[in-house]
Amino acid sequence: MRYELYYWPGIQGRGEFVRLALEEGGADYVDVARRSARNGLGMPAMMKLLEGEHVVCPPFAPPFLRAGDLLIGQTANILLFLGPRLNLVPKDEAGRLWVHQLQLTIADLVSEAHDTHHPIASSLYYKDQKPEALRRAADFTQARIPKFLAYFEAVLARNPHGDTFLTGDSLTYADLSMFQVIAGLRYAFPRTMKRLEPDCPRLVALHDAVADRPRIAAYLSSARRQPFNQEDVFRHYKELDVSS
Amino acid sequence: MRYELYYWPGIQGRGEFVRLALEEGGADYVDVARRSARNGLGMPAMMKLLEGEHVVCPPFAPPFLRAGDLLIGQTANILLFLGPRLNLVPKDEAGRLWVHQLQLTIADLVSEAHDTHHPIASSLYYKDQKPEALRRAADFTQARIPKFLAYFEAVLARNPHGDTFLTGDSLTYADLSMFQVIAGLRYAFPRTMKRLEPDCPRLVALHDAVADRPRIAAYLSSARRQPFNQEDVFRHYKELDVSS
Repeated sequence: MRYELYYWPGIQGRGEFVRLALEEGGADYVDVARRSARNGLGMPAMMKLLEGEHVVCPPFAPPFLRAGDLLIGQTANILLFLGPRLNLVPKDEAGRLWVHQLQLTIADLVSEAHDTHHPIASSLYYKDQKPEALRRAADFTQARIPKFLAYFEAVLARNPHGDTFLTGDSLTYADLSMFQVIAGLRYAFPRTMKRLEPDCPRLVALHDAVADRPRIAAYLSSARRQPFNQEDVFRHYKELDVSS
Repeated sequence: MRYELYYWPGIQGRGEFVRLALEEGGADYVDVARRSARNGLGMPAMMKLLEGEHVVCPPFAPPFLRAGDLLIGQTANILLFLGPRLNLVPKDEAGRLWVHQLQLTIADLVSEAHDTHHPIASSLYYKDQKPEALRRAADFTQARIPKFLAYFEAVLARNPHGDTFLTGDSLTYADLSMFQVIAGLRYAFPRTMKRLEPDCPRLVALHDAVADRPRIAAYLSSARRQPFNQEDVFRHYKELDVSS
């Protein structure tokens, strides 16, 4: 099965959670919107599915995945689909629900990270909502990041199989996503993370272990991994990283 | 199976999406936090699971559901679990993924509705973030609600089985959630909805059809259905309903 991933070119964004799963799973995939329109790929191919009036199951927004006849949207839903196929979830229903629950909580954290620089409207520039961003980021760095990190640190600490993975004794897509969140938060809020990381050693260890996995390490050092940048979900504005 | 639903008492909130599924499915359930603490229920029972240090799969926040040995958090994840058990999803995987995708998009809309009155921090009062709320609500009523409604209207219009349900030819939990969103938006943004509803007749018809289903009608007229109010996710502040 050759998967087709559709996501905005030029950023990691929410597409990165899917890329990490595809890479770790050794999947055959095409990152469609980053390829040339001359080959029938690129942005035109993505917009055709996003805006086509005859798409029966239209995605509301990227990322979305084409797998044979299926067109699947919503990041967590794509991972729900890929998990069993890429060997990134437990075998039992209870275990899969728990992984999905963790993923949805990670998704909430990612949305809040986005809203620190866009608290009013995604359609406006950061500079046009900067006063509001300063207030929202203050709450995010002082209250919300600590709350989320403490939660996931506790999940690791309580895993009956040890604190190597968020659940069970093997890697799931939630571990890959957790790696991405730690990396993103470090990029966007380095001072805040420097202050908080001593309180979440298990999460730091999880981040490092994921980064060291052969397929992930190869991916991260390849051109397929786009760098963090200032158009992305995680953005570094020094004035928003006001950790006390 | 007797299900135990845990959610903040006094509001519909995100718990309502689960309640509607349980009610339509004719499930045996207890709304734990609304019951008396004298019987071992109430808020103490909820806080014990939310804050207990020995809970292996802790929820990050309500709602969560106890089903036998399982403790399941995240609204959409609870519905993913309940869907097949309450006959509220199609039988095939593709159909179930599509219903879940719709639910996750509804969840995004609900989060944005919440953030109109709390754009800075959930921990602050509305009055302490009112200037920001005015700006965010302006974008929500002028750009975001229309975009979401147009999307779901198109989903109904494109359903190969007709426009009675969001997908297929029978009710799913996404239809129940869509009903709740329309009801909530009408409560919070009556002027905006009055302007927009002529453009989404299929969604209005879906709302009415769900409200008329025998079990839902019985639920809505019972004391189990709490009224919308100003502590809830959907809140009516006249100044935020500034539709042009």
